[in-house]
Amino acid sequence: MQKVPTVYDVAELAGVSIATVSRVLRKPHEVADATRDRVNAAVLDLGYVPSGSARSLAARRSGAIGLCLPDFDGIDEVSGLAPVEFSDGRVSTVLDLPEDVELGDHLYISEVMLGTEIEAWQHGMAVTIAVARGSRGSEIFDNLAGRVDGIVTLARTIPDKQLAHIARRVPVVVLAGPRSDDEYDHITTDNAEGMRVMTSHVLEEHGVTDLAFVGGPADSPDDDARFRGFCQALRAAGLPAPATPVARGDFTRAQGRSIGRRLLAEGRVPRALVCSNDQTALGVLDALTSAGRRVPEDVIVTGFDGIDASEVSRPRLTTVYQPMRDLGRAAVDTLLHRLRDSQIPPQTRTLPVKVLLRGSCGCLPPESV
Amino acid sequence: MQKVPTVYDVAELAGVSIATVSRVLRKPHEVADATRDRVNAAVLDLGYVPSGSARSLAARRSGAIGLCLPDFDGIDEVSGLAPVEFSDGRVSTVLDLPEDVELGDHLYISEVMLGTEIEAWQHGMAVTIAVARGSRGSEIFDNLAGRVDGIVTLARTIPDKQLAHIARRVPVVVLAGPRSDDEYDHITTDNAEGMRVMTSHVLEEHGVTDLAFVGGPADSPDDDARFRGFCQALRAAGLPAPATPVARGDFTRAQGRSIGRRLLAEGRVPRALVCSNDQTALGVLDALTSAGRRVPEDVIVTGFDGIDASEVSRPRLTTVYQPMRDLGRAAVDTLLHRLRDSQIPPQTRTLPVKVLLRGSCGCLPPESV
Repeated sequence: MQKVPTVYDVAELAGVSIATVSRVLRKPHEVADATRDRVNAAVLDLGYVPSGSARSLAARRSGAIGLCLPDFDGIDEVSGLAPVEFSDGRVSTVLDLPEDVELGDHLYISEVMLGTEIEAWQHGMAVTIAVARGSRGSEIFDNLAGRVDGIVTLARTIPDKQLAHIARRVPVVVLAGPRSDDEYDHITTDNAEGMRVMTSHVLEEHGVTDLAFVGGPADSPDDDARFRGFCQALRAAGLPAPATPVARGDFTRAQGRSIGRRLLAEGRVPRALVCSNDQTALGVLDALTSAGRRVPEDVIVTGFDGIDASEVSRPRLTTVYQPMRDLGRAAVDTLLHRLRDSQIPPQTRTLPVKVLLRGSCGCLPPESV
Repeated sequence: MQKVPTVYDVAELAGVSIATVSRVLRKPHEVADATRDRVNAAVLDLGYVPSGSARSLAARRSGAIGLCLPDFDGIDEVSGLAPVEFSDGRVSTVLDLPEDVELGDHLYISEVMLGTEIEAWQHGMAVTIAVARGSRGSEIFDNLAGRVDGIVTLARTIPDKQLAHIARRVPVVVLAGPRSDDEYDHITTDNAEGMRVMTSHVLEEHGVTDLAFVGGPADSPDDDARFRGFCQALRAAGLPAPATPVARGDFTRAQGRSIGRRLLAEGRVPRALVCSNDQTALGVLDALTSAGRRVPEDVIVTGFDGIDASEVSRPRLTTVYQPMRDLGRAAVDTLLHRLRDSQIPPQTRTLPVKVLLRGSCGCLPPESV
């Protein structure tokens, strides 16, 4: 690479002071047209790009938002990543048999990323992404905090103590977790109410009284709220509510499958399995249909999230849809409010959910796509 | 927010000079244990986060890679975005009828994003994302160039002149486009060869000689290479190659559908439609099956990309799989090579593709999932 042009080079070529160059870049309307044109021509000629670092130090604004995501793909330093393979010029052809597809595995994360990026773009800002993989997460988050105007983080991504440390420096918005004992802004969805309405639907419209809740991780606030909604619906129907879910997975389809197999093996499959997320429900569905159980005729299965894969399963999954992209958008919106006014009290803003009735509860014929 | 602690506060609390604090943060192994412990304790007590901006100016490294993506969602300032809706506490319940799902619309982009992020993470770096939406794209890319160590961009995202301008400042890697008359590093996939092998399969294994190519945007280098591969296979089989595709879409399923309808209306549906990407092929498939044409019995349809939606269509789509996530990973790998050695000549690195035979060409029974 050639020598990087500096503001001094631009000033020299345009025949102006560096203060004038700086003014053209920051407040072009305050500079005479002829001067501005000369400076802009010099900028273009030299290929001068103002330094974001220098500029942000001056403006005390980085123009970027940091997005911190949990380790959603299980990649870490220990297991490592295979190196990228490059082409040797030959194309292989394979017969691709159908198998259990882990469809939309990262869809929730991808949608949150896109929503964050879209809202930031609307305000002329960039998004810098950091993922809590392996032991390097902590260092990456600290670096990020020094580089952005604010942080959006999914709940449980950054350890409490580190998050408190970061929040002294830049504002923090927590996604998909209720406020506990903290001072951050929070964005949540109507988890409890959505699951209450879903469960009541199964109880009242399908007349099922023998139903169980398949949960996610015990430390997930989303799972906790959904289980509360499930219990609330049971009690409202005069039925006893269980103390715990019948089983707990980790929100993956693979775990859903093994839970389904275990319940089958132990003869503990009830008339309806209300699952804490779509991936778990799809895994349960895989296990049941592989064992010859008919859904919804023998067992009703429901999910939560509304990921793409729930649209195309057989039968299509009755679920509670949450606006994943709006989670990201709402977080940026809230962060910008906070940057404009640091004095308003911490807020919790809730996004709506919607119960989608499809084939897996029996509201639509199972053969409909 | 409370007062942001500075390096002076840390130095005072630890009873050392600011130079010592700086050394502990940059080169901890060069500092005596007792001093280091005292400084680290002060950092933690005060919640001090070193400024990324100040640090990167000193180190001339930002620790971030910029990823520039095309306007993949059609959002712009003019049409605008509806504001995020928050919950009013009520949950609605709707009967969700099956419809044409735009499944995996942004999957290619999402996978490239994830691949870039994973490889950056492996090297302790962050990724800053900028999308060329509306008129603000240009400004956002210029800002980005001043804030990152290098730029990864999808081909045709940044206008040539602006990209040349940016490349004087930081190295640039171009994804999914061949080198034209430029000095950038490029990552491509085996587009022409993949499509040649796919087309030869239809010609030789299925004995079809009446086949047409449904293209993407005329200025897409990917589309261009795939059409070349298609023509090559025809000529190798002793058949005439067309001068242009039978129709061109914009790589979306919606356009694929209208192309399918148009070909049906005009009675110009051949025995096989070889499509330039999966979304187009899935749209063509929608149109054909809606009109009662059987795939593959009446018409063979093939795609390119290997997105999730191609796994679950009916029939499942025979396609050329390209490693979308590896595109992002290879770009970061190449960028890091370039940062270590700016003198090596510009490289083009090619990723392998794989022909996946499924139901839509007749290699698997259409009823297989």
